[in-house]
Amino acid sequence: METKSENRCYGGTQGVYSHASDSTNCDMTFGLYLPEEAQHGPVPVLIYLSGLTCTHENAMTKAGAQVWCAEQGIAICFPDTSPRGEDVANDDGFDMGHAASFYLDATEAPWARHYQMESYITKELTKVLGENFNIDTDRMAITGHSMGGHGALTLALKHPDLYRSVSAFSPICHPTASEWGHRQFKGYLGEDKGVWADHDATMLAQSKGFDGPILIDQGTADQFYDKLGTADFAAACAAQKLDATVRLQKGYDHSYFFISTFMEDHVAFAAEALWA
Amino acid sequence: METKSENRCYGGTQGVYSHASDSTNCDMTFGLYLPEEAQHGPVPVLIYLSGLTCTHENAMTKAGAQVWCAEQGIAICFPDTSPRGEDVANDDGFDMGHAASFYLDATEAPWARHYQMESYITKELTKVLGENFNIDTDRMAITGHSMGGHGALTLALKHPDLYRSVSAFSPICHPTASEWGHRQFKGYLGEDKGVWADHDATMLAQSKGFDGPILIDQGTADQFYDKLGTADFAAACAAQKLDATVRLQKGYDHSYFFISTFMEDHVAFAAEALWA
Repeated sequence: METKSENRCYGGTQGVYSHASDSTNCDMTFGLYLPEEAQHGPVPVLIYLSGLTCTHENAMTKAGAQVWCAEQGIAICFPDTSPRGEDVANDDGFDMGHAASFYLDATEAPWARHYQMESYITKELTKVLGENFNIDTDRMAITGHSMGGHGALTLALKHPDLYRSVSAFSPICHPTASEWGHRQFKGYLGEDKGVWADHDATMLAQSKGFDGPILIDQGTADQFYDKLGTADFAAACAAQKLDATVRLQKGYDHSYFFISTFMEDHVAFAAEALWA
Repeated sequence: METKSENRCYGGTQGVYSHASDSTNCDMTFGLYLPEEAQHGPVPVLIYLSGLTCTHENAMTKAGAQVWCAEQGIAICFPDTSPRGEDVANDDGFDMGHAASFYLDATEAPWARHYQMESYITKELTKVLGENFNIDTDRMAITGHSMGGHGALTLALKHPDLYRSVSAFSPICHPTASEWGHRQFKGYLGEDKGVWADHDATMLAQSKGFDGPILIDQGTADQFYDKLGTADFAAACAAQKLDATVRLQKGYDHSYFFISTFMEDHVAFAAEALWA
């Protein structure tokens, strides 16, 4: 575990750390904000998964989450969006390969060797956080934006024992029916659409449900609205009577200005479940 | 006036605009956050001047100011840190030329033609904001970080009728005695140190004073502590019995994590003066 930087922030510490990962077979970097309370004992943690083109850094510097996490006394972790490195398979598009893992465990060449992000986030990162920081990994919640919203929803729905709540900002909700998903699932997972269903939030909501609370914020002026499948996910939640709130936010787009506007609500939402 | 972008944010609008400037003889870009209240009538404005290496964008995306400006019902403007363009004189260092104007009106070649930032900020930008947006330019306050803190302090002290309060995060307080100032003043203003005194916050505090309130936050772990001259400025404020508060913040550095931590206080400080 290497400390890349640590900055005092709202009475706690915003750190950046990297470590060799067994899951992804490369070094992984993440940001971690620890509130002041972590100096005295273990604190709950909210995992924030970022979207296409991002690293661990974007939301850490632009989403304005730390102030609310400090207020609630919870940590927030910003993992990277994919494995990284010269020998890690990539693609010419911005929406596949580096910074575009879709947070799944790839089964197909050339992706399978490094693209094991579901295992990384749910198993290895959980262990790394619990062993190296004053974090109570029995109290975790998850959130994310866009592709990271897809990651948050699918990982929570697949691993309900790990995450007490899930929320998302403009998530990709129905990737099997979107150009943000279809091409990537074919590449990472192969042709069998039965396998794809296990990584699609709308299909998981229909098939498995989720006992914890779900919160979605979606801007109505989102330039990628048609790729996200909000209507399908909202319909699935309603059909299954899940503990879900889907809020359409008039005039907001896909940017960090949208995310930061509603971050206070998402941190409070997670904290309520984490402290319950 | 060209609109580069507008994003809905905390019920208001975060915009980026550019315009041909008569002061600097080039196009100038600025960020402007207007709270919801600006849809109904003129609102006060806080000017935020950024530091070395920054554009209009850094603080706009990383300082977390909009949430507090929305709460207080005031606008915040993020001007660029210098004139820009291929024909605008520059320097190999990061601390002179582009992104390093020191917010003064240069008198020496090759700088004088474009580096007229004191006139730009105090006169032209004020006019542009008043004429193009729902902003009450009779109610302005100013703040900034590092070189921008120097700008905020010197412009407020020189133009006390324009700004009702001034605050700064880790400002360059005594540039004539610092490598962040000495070389630049020589280049921009020539050899006459009598002229330099008119652009040095510590010397202005001693010679002119300031009737409005002053707030400084300075991290004790600031990596540039020795270049800033905080002690000299604090001494000058105390000697002149100014309405000044200088807070040393233990363990904080020079980063946006420091700025964002104390932004709520600086916006509230400005708002109190603006609404008085």
